[in-house]
Amino acid sequence: MTTRLISKPLTTQAFAEFGEVINLEGFAGETINYGNTEKFADLLQIDTAEEGGRTAMHLYRSQPSTLPLEIAVMERHPMGSQAFVPLHNRPFPVIVAAADAQHLGASTVRVFMSNGRQGVNLRRGTWHHYQVSLGQVCDYLVIDRAGPGDNFEEQRLEPALLLEVYSG
Amino acid sequence: MTTRLISKPLTTQAFAEFGEVINLEGFAGETINYGNTEKFADLLQIDTAEEGGRTAMHLYRSQPSTLPLEIAVMERHPMGSQAFVPLHNRPFPVIVAAADAQHLGASTVRVFMSNGRQGVNLRRGTWHHYQVSLGQVCDYLVIDRAGPGDNFEEQRLEPALLLEVYSG
Repeated sequence: MTTRLISKPLTTQAFAEFGEVINLEGFAGETINYGNTEKFADLLQIDTAEEGGRTAMHLYRSQPSTLPLEIAVMERHPMGSQAFVPLHNRPFPVIVAAADAQHLGASTVRVFMSNGRQGVNLRRGTWHHYQVSLGQVCDYLVIDRAGPGDNFEEQRLEPALLLEVYSG
Repeated sequence: MTTRLISKPLTTQAFAEFGEVINLEGFAGETINYGNTEKFADLLQIDTAEEGGRTAMHLYRSQPSTLPLEIAVMERHPMGSQAFVPLHNRPFPVIVAAADAQHLGASTVRVFMSNGRQGVNLRRGTWHHYQVSLGQVCDYLVIDRAGPGDNFEEQRLEPALLLEVYSG
């Protein structure tokens, strides 16, 4: 039996259990630079200092996935947050499970659809599928922790789930 | 007498005195995520840990400037780096002077033109003009240091310079 994952829109409230949504919703800008710039400060909480960690920034160039997509393995970073900021403008799914999920399966895995401008900052330890892009190659800025220690865990899903239905 | 600033193209080598250029030039990607993603790791060195600092991320929404633009005041952050990643695709000037410049004027202020995809990471203490955008409102991700201490200095240019000539 295949369990189909259905996505929900990505909102700050719905995603709160897993991390932060990076967008301007709910942020008030302040005017700086002699009136030339509106600054939306501290859009996310970067959590990378654990055990001598530092903040690192990468670019991920992601091949588009074909749907339906088998969700067979998920990962997490137990020592720090990881943010994904889309440098494209295409809806993409964010596939997550709570850090304290006892089992990765249909009852715990959730899918949120970014509108293409929203990024996410995964809280330390949040289970997630690797970044899934749709339709074309998509670039993301990734801001996470570099440093000593083992900051990577992976878990297979038994049985795998199927990401099939989504809304943009 | 007005001194006109002439821009040079933004390249890693030409900008090395002031900070890093954020682009994929010279970076070799590594394949991760079961072949789905090319990762360009550590595109910049984020220098924010000084005296209990943390890494902060903001969005700057910048009004377009009209040329010629008077360059009358510059600023710097003596306690950490500051990165600007364009979320648009328009050429923009980066106006800088070295951290150890004795005087801010025609002999020390330099202008580099980003191609619109390149970002910059200003080294700690590099003098810079606030972000100048051309033609339309432009958004930038800004990654810098938050935390205790005075991380802001400003200096007036006497006489002011004029940013007038630029190349895309």
